[in-house]
Amino acid sequence: MHRAQIKLCNELREISPHVKNMKQLEYVVLARRVSQIKEELRQGVRKPYKEVIDVSWGDPHRAGLKPLTFVRQVLSTCLYPELMNSNRLPADVRQRAQRLLGGCAGGSVGSYTATEGIPEIVHSVSEFITRRDGGVPSDPENIYISPGSQWALTNILNVLVNREASTRTGVLTPMPCHSATTLGIMGLGGVVVPYYLSEEQGWELQVEDLHQALESAKGVCNPVALYVINPGNPSGQVQSRKSMQEVIRFVSERRLFLLADEVYQDCIYGENSEFVSYKKVLTEMGPPLSDTVELASFHSASKGFMGECGLRGGYVELVNLDPAVLKYIKTLFSTDSCAPVLGQLALDLMMNPPQPGDPSYPLYDMETQHIRTTLVHNAKRAVSVLNSLQGFCCQPVEGGAFAFPRVYLPPKAIQKAKEVGMQPDTFYCIRLLEEAGLLFSAGCEYGQKEGTHHIRFCIMAPEDVMEELLKRLTSFHTQFMKEFS
Amino acid sequence: MHRAQIKLCNELREISPHVKNMKQLEYVVLARRVSQIKEELRQGVRKPYKEVIDVSWGDPHRAGLKPLTFVRQVLSTCLYPELMNSNRLPADVRQRAQRLLGGCAGGSVGSYTATEGIPEIVHSVSEFITRRDGGVPSDPENIYISPGSQWALTNILNVLVNREASTRTGVLTPMPCHSATTLGIMGLGGVVVPYYLSEEQGWELQVEDLHQALESAKGVCNPVALYVINPGNPSGQVQSRKSMQEVIRFVSERRLFLLADEVYQDCIYGENSEFVSYKKVLTEMGPPLSDTVELASFHSASKGFMGECGLRGGYVELVNLDPAVLKYIKTLFSTDSCAPVLGQLALDLMMNPPQPGDPSYPLYDMETQHIRTTLVHNAKRAVSVLNSLQGFCCQPVEGGAFAFPRVYLPPKAIQKAKEVGMQPDTFYCIRLLEEAGLLFSAGCEYGQKEGTHHIRFCIMAPEDVMEELLKRLTSFHTQFMKEFS
Repeated sequence: MHRAQIKLCNELREISPHVKNMKQLEYVVLARRVSQIKEELRQGVRKPYKEVIDVSWGDPHRAGLKPLTFVRQVLSTCLYPELMNSNRLPADVRQRAQRLLGGCAGGSVGSYTATEGIPEIVHSVSEFITRRDGGVPSDPENIYISPGSQWALTNILNVLVNREASTRTGVLTPMPCHSATTLGIMGLGGVVVPYYLSEEQGWELQVEDLHQALESAKGVCNPVALYVINPGNPSGQVQSRKSMQEVIRFVSERRLFLLADEVYQDCIYGENSEFVSYKKVLTEMGPPLSDTVELASFHSASKGFMGECGLRGGYVELVNLDPAVLKYIKTLFSTDSCAPVLGQLALDLMMNPPQPGDPSYPLYDMETQHIRTTLVHNAKRAVSVLNSLQGFCCQPVEGGAFAFPRVYLPPKAIQKAKEVGMQPDTFYCIRLLEEAGLLFSAGCEYGQKEGTHHIRFCIMAPEDVMEELLKRLTSFHTQFMKEFS
Repeated sequence: MHRAQIKLCNELREISPHVKNMKQLEYVVLARRVSQIKEELRQGVRKPYKEVIDVSWGDPHRAGLKPLTFVRQVLSTCLYPELMNSNRLPADVRQRAQRLLGGCAGGSVGSYTATEGIPEIVHSVSEFITRRDGGVPSDPENIYISPGSQWALTNILNVLVNREASTRTGVLTPMPCHSATTLGIMGLGGVVVPYYLSEEQGWELQVEDLHQALESAKGVCNPVALYVINPGNPSGQVQSRKSMQEVIRFVSERRLFLLADEVYQDCIYGENSEFVSYKKVLTEMGPPLSDTVELASFHSASKGFMGECGLRGGYVELVNLDPAVLKYIKTLFSTDSCAPVLGQLALDLMMNPPQPGDPSYPLYDMETQHIRTTLVHNAKRAVSVLNSLQGFCCQPVEGGAFAFPRVYLPPKAIQKAKEVGMQPDTFYCIRLLEEAGLLFSAGCEYGQKEGTHHIRFCIMAPEDVMEELLKRLTSFHTQFMKEFS
């Protein structure tokens, strides 16, 4: 065998069994089966459903939500500037396209940009942050635009994870947590140090659990950072200011770098929930905390009402970093090419939507209000239907894109899953897919307390799709519970 | 100081002085100064030129080449499908947009795709490769679409570079070589093992230099891969089949992984030059070589006649890899999100351009012919003007995007550069920028034989821009040589 291959195969063996399990047994089993089912449906095989509803991704357009007209009009005009001559497009669309192209080299979205992003858009981002945080200043020098927030997170993790140290680097990570982050940490050679969110308290982050997580890391790894995601994925909670203050005090005492994933900041559904950024809370707490806690905050054009996952645009803002470290991060970012230009432009549109009085405002307002109403409705409706079913318990979905109900599987179902070599919630999801044409994902992909089982599905979908989904789920679940009772 | 920061600053010290030098002293000095000059020009400061010509990037649109109409029409229609109702757009544009949207979840370019790319486009890529290589089969399972070829290369390097081994991993890399690759290798903790191309033989790759490079690595690192770029950047040579066969035999004997960067495959200007892919040559050589040599070949939508750098779409095809290793690479790719959807669609358009008889064909053909003629003209014209100037010697530009002439700087100029703390060719480039408004890059960014100096500039520009550039260069250079004679 080739020497590179021997080394690869060693690495292969080194991949945590947890990851291998997750990726191969859980998600991949479902993904493979859904392709087969779609093919069968195309070939006319009769099933109890005409099409699969795929709500396994946090992907609004996939689930049937419509893109925002203003966004698509501006971006298509940037791609094909001939459209500026058409008076079918509103004047503000044409003006915006003109302005955005002014920031592109050679007036083309086909040119590279600076690796940290188009300067005008970096400034837009910093102005947006300042407005959002009620005047807390944001320095454009601390902002990097990237092909999605996950990419920026990986780059920062790459700086934090020390592969050469004898003790491996740990990152405190919530459980449950979406798998891109946990896989990212492990892929870089870091150790995921889980802290469990309190499901019974609406998935609240409790600082005792952070202390416990640090304890658990002793002798295993050297924790250098704490990752939080607010609003949560998959947990859907929105952190209170008090909880955030506790987190900030904790990372300060323990000298941890704070990684705040805030990509769902526009997705708030709870009546008493409010998004406040970690940067704002940190600033409010005053010195010495506000001058010393190192913070990276992530945001994206993929989530929120725009939902442009496919364009790949996100950013990170870094707070309180040593200038020498910032310079190093800049070097790291600059070894890669720039973020896709259309993703960068989408960020500008997200930061600066049409304002009252603009020709595009009425339609933009109608579309975003419609999405907002739909999501608030879906979040409530999903929780209410789930909690009406025997064997489900769903915490309120206060924000984010997902419902993550606990499912109390009958012992016979758990036994059956064991027999076929599957995690019990994957077994549930496979049956749900086969019999009801619903593609959900299994709680075991996200990390859950031993002996508990969950399923995750995206609530970002049109109301009729959500109703159909809940109808199919109700009918399947009732049948499933009967079968294994 | 914070423990994460201490570790960061250690890493900072560890960055090779070579990299720090390149990035900070050479490129950054130029980039900073060009921003200031542009600002001065905006404010009406009088200079001997009205605007800066920036040919320091391999970026056709930046230099003034126009995007292809067909490409932009299809992509803008995919973004804003309302345009399909307009009969201003050719029928094949609308049909193509319709077909491409059929491969996007929810019919939207705003949805995520599979991490290896939209299946239909992966198939397009494999069919393109098979056609290009005269029937050599290409398996879609071995193709990964990525946000640009550089990103795919970094991912493969990430697999090859073993950070935990006591001996560091080496990658044989041509000198000169564009800096994204060298920085990428070093950023991952690998060692760049330079092999020098023979400038006097038109930057030919000579197998003796590969042997010599391997010798030089002894006791320093463990070489596992050979990186070649054909056509070359910055060197502009096109490899002969014979040279490629030698490279293949060499990597086979030395059990090296072959990384073939073939992003400039459409950019061939030499009358006797022809692009042949490494995969084709490898297949022609038959077993055992064709069954055993591990090869990764990279291509991109950024280069060629389309020149859509800003959309970020590329791919890698892997040949002869162990299925277990492939699976591992797939896992690595899948920890990141998909490539930007519009970059993926651009690849499809590159692979399947309009054909004779299609409504878009005449315009497409005219535009691509025009670009081709321009580039062939520019390549010849640049070499001929450079070689007519005292102190320049430029090898033929047979392919790629750049001219990379050697400049014989007078000892007084070298002395002056030393006094101001700059590399001599950076000093030349700074003066060229100040006095002639031309942004080139300095040979020291790419690696060159001790005591030699070069400059690099992109020849992908409209003819009038190239003429203006050569005029300014001629006048500046004559003055410069006089000043330091």
